[in-house]
Amino acid sequence: MRKPAAEADAPQKAAGNQPKTARGEATRKAILTAAERVIGEKGYNDASIGHITSEAGVAQGTFYIYFTTKEQVFSELVLEMGRLVRHTIAEATQGIGNRLEAEEAGLRAFLEFVQAHPDLYRIVQEALFVDPAAYEEYYKTFAAGYRSGLVAAEAAGQISKGDTETRAWALMGIARALGEQLVVFKSEKPISELVASAYDLIANGIKP
Amino acid sequence: MRKPAAEADAPQKAAGNQPKTARGEATRKAILTAAERVIGEKGYNDASIGHITSEAGVAQGTFYIYFTTKEQVFSELVLEMGRLVRHTIAEATQGIGNRLEAEEAGLRAFLEFVQAHPDLYRIVQEALFVDPAAYEEYYKTFAAGYRSGLVAAEAAGQISKGDTETRAWALMGIARALGEQLVVFKSEKPISELVASAYDLIANGIKP
Repeated sequence: MRKPAAEADAPQKAAGNQPKTARGEATRKAILTAAERVIGEKGYNDASIGHITSEAGVAQGTFYIYFTTKEQVFSELVLEMGRLVRHTIAEATQGIGNRLEAEEAGLRAFLEFVQAHPDLYRIVQEALFVDPAAYEEYYKTFAAGYRSGLVAAEAAGQISKGDTETRAWALMGIARALGEQLVVFKSEKPISELVASAYDLIANGIKP
Repeated sequence: MRKPAAEADAPQKAAGNQPKTARGEATRKAILTAAERVIGEKGYNDASIGHITSEAGVAQGTFYIYFTTKEQVFSELVLEMGRLVRHTIAEATQGIGNRLEAEEAGLRAFLEFVQAHPDLYRIVQEALFVDPAAYEEYYKTFAAGYRSGLVAAEAAGQISKGDTETRAWALMGIARALGEQLVVFKSEKPISELVASAYDLIANGIKP
């Protein structure tokens, strides 16, 4: 029986050894980048630790200096992706005082990130089946940050009053659907057009 | 290597025998309903044809009267789910002349369907890995219908002018994210509140 997210084992955030040197950190990142490519291409079940170390250009034994199992490198990859996406959006919206402008810039940054990491979408989606706790953490952390931003913008009168929780989920749903358009359904619509159309919907709705 | 959706084998829509009698049709539906429950609970890999026939209360050999393989019953399930969702929304919005009201009624019907079929979400998501062609057909068929509705509403002046293709994907993204809230993240927010908040966003946007 599939484990529901709440009962699943917590991702082993501290498992494996944290590298102590810059070279160690570079090797760990190379393994994560290779895992992104290999798991994104082959899928979790068909990807092996050997495939990952071969892609990273390190000996198989090196994997175990940084990670304990394939499960653990997968969890770490999902959480690392979440941190990277949030960091990218935070950087893109830094210094933008108006929430509506920040929505637009954040959506653009997200779609550019997805396009630059075409395997991200599949990896996060596959986490629902491979590591439900990491999937839940990915989306819940994202939603909590999104919601805080909406609450502050509402208080500042930058957006209309509304249910910030549902809005956060709905706006994330829009971003995710457009990201899927790019990397799963291979839409050739430029990101600028996707962002402009979505922004118009988000800001003004579709009422005539 | 994972097969991209476009190159994957087309789902064998005509595979297996189509039942010729009402009783045969009832047995076929019972097997699909059992597959929905078993694959939804165990995941595709861990679900077996034996589990499905046992859940359906039929002999294992009976499965092969209607389906050829586990792959095929899965594809058929994804496509059947798509037909059912579209039929449910069409029924709920029939006779509603105004598109904005139809958006609201359609979203409510979709979320009620997802809540009544809690395994649907996982099954469709898992199709991205198990049967990319069925996944693509599910979303593309849905999007094409959604877009036609928006094009007609735009022509009738019931919604503002805009990029109907991106709007269709964005609106589907909202519905999917709220459905996930219900069945994956176990939100206890009533459907009526989710619909009211999402409708406000869809109709009016968040501009103050």
